[in-house]
Amino acid sequence: MQGLHIIADLYHCPQGDYLHSANALRALCLGACAAAGLSVLGEHFYQFDSFDHIQPGGATGAVVLAESHLAIHTWPERDGATLDIYVCNVTGDNSTRAEHLYASLIAALKPADVLAKRVWRGKDLPIKAAA
Amino acid sequence: MQGLHIIADLYHCPQGDYLHSANALRALCLGACAAAGLSVLGEHFYQFDSFDHIQPGGATGAVVLAESHLAIHTWPERDGATLDIYVCNVTGDNSTRAEHLYASLIAALKPADVLAKRVWRGKDLPIKAAA
Repeated sequence: MQGLHIIADLYHCPQGDYLHSANALRALCLGACAAAGLSVLGEHFYQFDSFDHIQPGGATGAVVLAESHLAIHTWPERDGATLDIYVCNVTGDNSTRAEHLYASLIAALKPADVLAKRVWRGKDLPIKAAA
Repeated sequence: MQGLHIIADLYHCPQGDYLHSANALRALCLGACAAAGLSVLGEHFYQFDSFDHIQPGGATGAVVLAESHLAIHTWPERDGATLDIYVCNVTGDNSTRAEHLYASLIAALKPADVLAKRVWRGKDLPIKAAA
């Protein structure tokens, strides 16, 4: 259960496919997880309609990882996105992989301003022996 | 983008279907989201194999919500689970719904000990006018 959770709110992202298209965002996320050495177990992404019938709708999705999850939501009408990357350290410290994934997504979404915090989750409890 | 994110690490959960079974955990989460008045757009849950071929494997999953997401991961071998509930406030304050969902999941998973924090995410940026 112990591991790093990166919580980031991204502001002033340039308009583009990653903000507008669930398919583009899915491809970005799956590619970035693989490049970071994280194991994708499945995902669900969803395309929002335009809220005002003029500006593009946003995209939202989650990737279920063997190491925990990635969740991402975009708001084109605010030039923004939120990002969560949580990796547990079951077989080793995955913090470097989480930071690699985070850097890839920031490089793609190009926010001019980011509010990020890193939360170290979980107590280091021993694994129980089988009864 | 503005909204409540409840981050919780659950300890000393009793052994049972919610810790062991991805199908049971999926049903719990989808029912609890609906009961809290949150809108499910999709989900992915995954069943882990036993890590020692004796104790039951854990379950993991994410629910994509119109209001953002729920992510949950269980560790039966540590009697634990982690829980993330993030709701943005696009059409109104969804904090009460998030707390309702959180209370339902805590009531089902019955941890004896919880490490929880509430993060208020996002700046209150105005929605852009269409160009």
